Amino acid sequence: MEIYLDNSATTKVCKEAAEAMTDMLVNNYGNPSSLHRKGVEASMALEKARGNVADALSCSKDEIYFTTSGTTANNTAIFGAVGANKRKGNRIITTSLEHPSVNEAMKRLEQQGFEVIRLKPDSKGAFSPVQLMNAINHNTVLISVMAVNNEIGTINPINQLRNAVRRANSQALIHVDAVQAFGKIHLNPAKSGIDLMTVSAHKIHGPKGAGAIYVRKGVNMTPCIVGGGQEKGLFSGTEAMPAIVGFGEAVKNLPDIGKEYDEIRHIRDGFIKDVTQIGGVHINSSPDSLPYIINMSVLGVPSQTMVNALSEKGIYVSAGSACKKGHRSEVLSAIGLDPKFIDSAIRISLSRYTTADDMKCVTAAIDSIVKRIRR
Amino acid sequence: MEIYLDNSATTKVCKEAAEAMTDMLVNNYGNPSSLHRKGVEASMALEKARGNVADALSCSKDEIYFTTSGTTANNTAIFGAVGANKRKGNRIITTSLEHPSVNEAMKRLEQQGFEVIRLKPDSKGAFSPVQLMNAINHNTVLISVMAVNNEIGTINPINQLRNAVRRANSQALIHVDAVQAFGKIHLNPAKSGIDLMTVSAHKIHGPKGAGAIYVRKGVNMTPCIVGGGQEKGLFSGTEAMPAIVGFGEAVKNLPDIGKEYDEIRHIRDGFIKDVTQIGGVHINSSPDSLPYIINMSVLGVPSQTMVNALSEKGIYVSAGSACKKGHRSEVLSAIGLDPKFIDSAIRISLSRYTTADDMKCVTAAIDSIVKRIRR
Repeated sequence: MEIYLDNSATTKVCKEAAEAMTDMLVNNYGNPSSLHRKGVEASMALEKARGNVADALSCSKDEIYFTTSGTTANNTAIFGAVGANKRKGNRIITTSLEHPSVNEAMKRLEQQGFEVIRLKPDSKGAFSPVQLMNAINHNTVLISVMAVNNEIGTINPINQLRNAVRRANSQALIHVDAVQAFGKIHLNPAKSGIDLMTVSAHKIHGPKGAGAIYVRKGVNMTPCIVGGGQEKGLFSGTEAMPAIVGFGEAVKNLPDIGKEYDEIRHIRDGFIKDVTQIGGVHINSSPDSLPYIINMSVLGVPSQTMVNALSEKGIYVSAGSACKKGHRSEVLSAIGLDPKFIDSAIRISLSRYTTADDMKCVTAAIDSIVKRIRR
Repeated sequence: MEIYLDNSATTKVCKEAAEAMTDMLVNNYGNPSSLHRKGVEASMALEKARGNVADALSCSKDEIYFTTSGTTANNTAIFGAVGANKRKGNRIITTSLEHPSVNEAMKRLEQQGFEVIRLKPDSKGAFSPVQLMNAINHNTVLISVMAVNNEIGTINPINQLRNAVRRANSQALIHVDAVQAFGKIHLNPAKSGIDLMTVSAHKIHGPKGAGAIYVRKGVNMTPCIVGGGQEKGLFSGTEAMPAIVGFGEAVKNLPDIGKEYDEIRHIRDGFIKDVTQIGGVHINSSPDSLPYIINMSVLGVPSQTMVNALSEKGIYVSAGSACKKGHRSEVLSAIGLDPKFIDSAIRISLSRYTTADDMKCVTAAIDSIVKRIRR
């Protein structure tokens, strides 16, 4: 038995993406910058993938820039926007719950003299547009927030960002890290007034090794990685073709977002009903959070003990986000969770391949582990 | 007929790499940072690939850091070394013939106040250790040179760098961009006294989307891309597993370097003998350059005309490097080539899959194109 429930860390690559990638490796292996037929064919595959990502974000193809991961995309978006617009000011607003690729970028900008304001989340892990508006001043150059928290699944009010910025009469650019949201909730950066948005392939059944940034037309950017000028100069280096093409196919094969969301919510709700029958189980994710992410604690069973015990049974979950292994969760601290819950928290993250039966197996497995350990 | 001779731009992925990558996509799809079995399995594949690259460079596994391309590797090496060692001085020495990923990084460092000295090449496109020694002062923090020029194949004296630095009594770090040299000439950075070395997967029949840096133990580096701390903090972001594993397999399946070199030289020499029978053909690469790269001019046939005409016949060559499409070659200008030769220059780059018969087809094709155009 193998039940993979660490889909917020990474996902299994879908058949369509894997097949398209194999074709790129073996047949369409040219360099998109080469001017002969083999290069042109590769370039066409690159632009097709770009079109697929653009379609999913309801934007123009030339607003999509490929990078090699969510991290290189977040770094490029943040350093790029601040680098090209620093004359507008030196305040940056973010939240205290961002992914390390945003948080570490912020620390570096602080070292360079920028003032970074980190909004504190409410008990569900969200910030409010009012908080944001109060933090914006005439000196604010960038706002960078995640759409969905990667550890507990909280959905942030990203559609209200533009209005807050407008009411504060600010020129600030808005960046949204949508890595956990992409393919799960409807995203339309142009309609939402978002200037920059990060997405990643390997969270949506595409391969590791590809990410993308939506950059609204007209936004000036300074590249972080420089060289041959690929991706219109914003991210140089020979394009990671197999991964990018796999990304494009994964995007093209995303299921109907609303329908899948409802199905996953149904599976989640059933699981929560079952698993909370076990004594000492506490659900840390809020009921209105993204149903793909269930953060829960099993009192008396330390996180890593539970992860290992489940792993031995072929059930793969996480003790936090894969990007912060070994550190106590800042997110769970920030939402004010009791330390005894934090130290026993696990994250179960679902995908389109997860079934209600899988989740019944998980409940049974947790029950047996709890009984063994508490005995 | 399809004869691919643009191997300095990119190569066809070898069977072993493609198969290993497919396995990673479909079966071993975990995140190497995850602590369950699926993560551990991915982590083992990552470390195996690292071991393969380390073996090829005769170094320790923990001196190899994966990135996503030669460009991200060059940027990380240069910005990283300078960032962490700027107290040592502000002079950087490079050559005027570097790849854009080095050259553009240098321009950025100049904007930041560094003094960049660009060594001028001799008529073969190489610099001399004496030139280097004369350029080094007590203020020199980094020397960055390529091992093999990507447009004309000139081999630089990288084994004499350390001695020049030592004789100049300098603390400067030495970085070598070995992207075109890797897998073709023997490289042993430790033995050569090189501190940092860049290699890339897709020039050695591995996939696009993976590169690596050798960083000698003890060299301090500042990361360029920040986040979850992957690659011991030097290059954050979920590892591009399929590409990295393909890289490892491509390295493992490199043929005997000396033997292949001799075979390729034999094929090249035969081709040059044949093709120079055609009137107006001039070989721009020096006879002692890397035999995998043949830069030549066909008087009266502009580069792009020749590239297109050959492409129509299923023969893929380049009008320069794929990374600088559309710009007149700086390398050919720098070696003092007559403009009429520069404007008709093409680069033919061979691989282990190239045969003498392939090259006879190329000669025949060039002959027929020349006859048609000159008529």
